[in-house]
Amino acid sequence: MAYIKVDENLPGIRGLMHFRPETAQPMNDLAEALLRSENSLSCGERELIATYVSYLNDCFFCQNAHGGIAQHYLQCEVSDIDKIKEDYRNSGVSDKLKALLSIAGSVQKSGKSVTEEQVNLARKEGATDREIHDTVLIAAAFCMFNRYVDGLGTSAPADRDFYIKRGKQRAEEGYAHYDPRN
Amino acid sequence: MAYIKVDENLPGIRGLMHFRPETAQPMNDLAEALLRSENSLSCGERELIATYVSYLNDCFFCQNAHGGIAQHYLQCEVSDIDKIKEDYRNSGVSDKLKALLSIAGSVQKSGKSVTEEQVNLARKEGATDREIHDTVLIAAAFCMFNRYVDGLGTSAPADRDFYIKRGKQRAEEGYAHYDPRN
Repeated sequence: MAYIKVDENLPGIRGLMHFRPETAQPMNDLAEALLRSENSLSCGERELIATYVSYLNDCFFCQNAHGGIAQHYLQCEVSDIDKIKEDYRNSGVSDKLKALLSIAGSVQKSGKSVTEEQVNLARKEGATDREIHDTVLIAAAFCMFNRYVDGLGTSAPADRDFYIKRGKQRAEEGYAHYDPRN
Repeated sequence: MAYIKVDENLPGIRGLMHFRPETAQPMNDLAEALLRSENSLSCGERELIATYVSYLNDCFFCQNAHGGIAQHYLQCEVSDIDKIKEDYRNSGVSDKLKALLSIAGSVQKSGKSVTEEQVNLARKEGATDREIHDTVLIAAAFCMFNRYVDGLGTSAPADRDFYIKRGKQRAEEGYAHYDPRN
């Protein structure tokens, strides 16, 4: 049971977005701009950054919801997503994405934790200013989404298959016209 | 100097919003919905929650920018804002706002840090579900804004009078049509 009266058939952020559509719309517009709009980082790479930060924040709903979307884009197994979350440095992702995940991990701690050295390394691996910007903002945005979901004590289905099935739907439908009831 | 190439005449979040208007607009729409739209929490109370979380996150730009706006709404001195940031429990704010600031302080740590007891106390002091929801989301949103501003290494004017003067302008103009150049 969430801390406020929401429709308990709508788990995680869905019940909250249904409760307060006025704040849901700009949050979904931000997700669309960051995670789906035209970008030199692929949708799969951006969803991985979101998934990794949600994992660091120990937000079960968000790390599985966005892990499911990343898995759909990357056409991989849930165990591949888990490996990246737990040890991206020894995973098969590109060196550029490793440098960006390192920045995202610092943002999860605090803004001031990001160092010039991390940014320089990302640039050396080919990251553009826009990619560095978007990585920091995706990580920061998930520090918001994760706190929103857990700070109001929402429930989340324990079955990980639930998120894998929904990942495909979300990847196809996007965020901008998101209806939390579906 | 910020970590990415932004107009250095635009401090804090302003240079970033000018760099990437596609993500600036939904963030400003969210700020407008949370901090300025019709609400049983006053604009001054909501800006205080934003200021307090930004203080806990040690974000100089945000705590002064929103402290300046809160000061304008509440028609008080900068020393009153400082007292609330540093020791709200012994300040003159209402018991309901104290209970909500306690929740916001937990959200700053992590979503899971919020307890049912904190929510029950806020409700006992008269807080509605909507007020509890908005407090959590304001606190979560400033965990994003603060990380965005500091995670990209932006500069911030040291002169606190700068923020006090701008607080009045921002309070009058709002966030929805925010032009980071002005």
